[in-house]
Amino acid sequence: MSTGEEPPSGPDLTGPVLVVGSGLIGASVGLALRRQRITVYLRDQDPQVSAVAASRGAGDDREPAEAPQLVVVCVPPTRVAEAVIEALHTWPRSVVTDVSSIKAGPFVEVVAGLGQDAEPLRRYVGGHPMAGRERSGPLAASGSLFDGRTWAVTPHEQVDPAAVAVVESLVRLCGANLLTMSPADHDTAVARISHLPHVLAVLAAARLEGAPPDQMVLSGQGLRDVTRVAAGDPGLWRQILRANASPVRDLLVQVKDDLDELIAQLEKTEPDVDGLLRRGATGTRAIPGKHGGPARSLDTLYVVVPDQPGELGRLFAAAGDAGVNIEDVRIDHDLGRPSGLLELAVPESAGPTLAAALSERGWVVHR
Amino acid sequence: MSTGEEPPSGPDLTGPVLVVGSGLIGASVGLALRRQRITVYLRDQDPQVSAVAASRGAGDDREPAEAPQLVVVCVPPTRVAEAVIEALHTWPRSVVTDVSSIKAGPFVEVVAGLGQDAEPLRRYVGGHPMAGRERSGPLAASGSLFDGRTWAVTPHEQVDPAAVAVVESLVRLCGANLLTMSPADHDTAVARISHLPHVLAVLAAARLEGAPPDQMVLSGQGLRDVTRVAAGDPGLWRQILRANASPVRDLLVQVKDDLDELIAQLEKTEPDVDGLLRRGATGTRAIPGKHGGPARSLDTLYVVVPDQPGELGRLFAAAGDAGVNIEDVRIDHDLGRPSGLLELAVPESAGPTLAAALSERGWVVHR
Repeated sequence: MSTGEEPPSGPDLTGPVLVVGSGLIGASVGLALRRQRITVYLRDQDPQVSAVAASRGAGDDREPAEAPQLVVVCVPPTRVAEAVIEALHTWPRSVVTDVSSIKAGPFVEVVAGLGQDAEPLRRYVGGHPMAGRERSGPLAASGSLFDGRTWAVTPHEQVDPAAVAVVESLVRLCGANLLTMSPADHDTAVARISHLPHVLAVLAAARLEGAPPDQMVLSGQGLRDVTRVAAGDPGLWRQILRANASPVRDLLVQVKDDLDELIAQLEKTEPDVDGLLRRGATGTRAIPGKHGGPARSLDTLYVVVPDQPGELGRLFAAAGDAGVNIEDVRIDHDLGRPSGLLELAVPESAGPTLAAALSERGWVVHR
Repeated sequence: MSTGEEPPSGPDLTGPVLVVGSGLIGASVGLALRRQRITVYLRDQDPQVSAVAASRGAGDDREPAEAPQLVVVCVPPTRVAEAVIEALHTWPRSVVTDVSSIKAGPFVEVVAGLGQDAEPLRRYVGGHPMAGRERSGPLAASGSLFDGRTWAVTPHEQVDPAAVAVVESLVRLCGANLLTMSPADHDTAVARISHLPHVLAVLAAARLEGAPPDQMVLSGQGLRDVTRVAAGDPGLWRQILRANASPVRDLLVQVKDDLDELIAQLEKTEPDVDGLLRRGATGTRAIPGKHGGPARSLDTLYVVVPDQPGELGRLFAAAGDAGVNIEDVRIDHDLGRPSGLLELAVPESAGPTLAAALSERGWVVHR
């Protein structure tokens, strides 16, 4: 892995760029590159979609007037390999990349699709910007979607280093942070930090289906947090789990071992569950903190906030006046509560200051 | 289940009240009752703890001058039954309740501990206020801790209805919403909505232990949400899982069936994972919405916020000026992002208004 702090080492991206698939990600790539005055052409299998993206300023939806330096394939996961192969054949001197969330499977498909002709493979480099949204389509696009986000670039062994340099330049021009890793390492990583937690959230949420409503009344914030991602589009997640089946399966087998052991322990008179609980607590500390730094010591304040317009404004204005930077915020929606309970995380040293400042102005604060 | 909308049907709680165990919950009960001018006595096995609670105004830490009308047992889960039995024997006319998060197990222990003498059992009614905190101890206590929270009361078959009425009165005086259910139903409910999601969060987090740091760099908000509760105190959760082992085990066996099926599907060429993903999405919709109402249609706005004091104040002031009530807020801490991305949920009708108001004032807003 390299974290992209080194200066660009190869050809810069100067354009033109052809974006294939003008939905949320494709149109956002176009908008980000247009900020840099790079010529962008937009294509979509639905011409209305590329027309909308063009109308938002993401590029030109007519046929490219010249061969692109780079083709960025932004189509749904199941059509990536096919679109990459088509681009490599159509533009025999262009670099081609894609933005799909799985890297090894599409690469294997591209290799298989190209057959004996290995030359085009040298011009293909996969990528994956870590910038999803709950909304999709070109209307949700934004030129700042990738600002400060991680964008993984996954070179394979046969690739031309000059092609990699062009894609790395794309990442920088879009304002993202470059992370270089192999396709297999990438897929293992997203299995662990995205697909596995998604599956476990789904398993928790699946047990709520058909639960007696009087049991659900006791639901708290913990349940909402654990299961939130399980509300995501089942159609998209089917594609993701199919495309990354092997790494996800391997992790699930490890989870199953833990689960079997836990069930066996819970059948004993004196269950020993300490080891698993401790491993879980340790695991949470492996998640990088805000802005990628190490987890800092934070103080937590709880403030009662009436549920009406303007109250959060008054509260945060008071915090700003006190010179305290709020690191995190969460609204606790407890059942039947006429007012919200706001949880504020602030640097440990600022906790007493903020609590005093808020109390002085009449807020009910717990620490 | 009844939701406590009916008027009080028996003796009111007038005091005195003896609180046994003066930590977070005990001291908060004392503070809430003192708001109502009810006489409260505080006890703790560590006299310094009850002295601190008393100094905060939660009650009197001397020996009770008279027999209490109600004893509220607020000791850790493993010592509940013993403390309840002691209170029933020490005060032969007092009603006794407890606040532990598991109800059936302690009840069985109380029955066993009382032996042939069934009279005291008529004066015991279990309870469970749904009001936890990340902090503990009397310094974290608050008289408003229970405001609007659900407080489950769990009468058993041999209980005196007058004793139940006293505990129901306690719940109302503490500002909580009464929910009446059997001990067994309560334990099944918390297994499903709290203990099972906790275990699944732990299983996801346990797979992060020892993960290569370059994989963790790709972590996003979804991972943080799913695993957050797994950071909770392993010592407390050991007690909870041991005390509610049977209902949790039964649910985990159901999860294991889903997991086995999922692993088998992921080993196929064409995995069929649609059913599970759909059940998960359906399950999330069974969770009651804000303030217990049905889930409302919300619009989501994303706003880029510089990471410095005062910015959130400016933002929320603008929202208040626009007359828009913010229903939920979340800060997305993406790796390496110099500014935060704030996710605001507002009523669907207010989305365009707020987006326009914020854009006008120079905020970068995505919808």
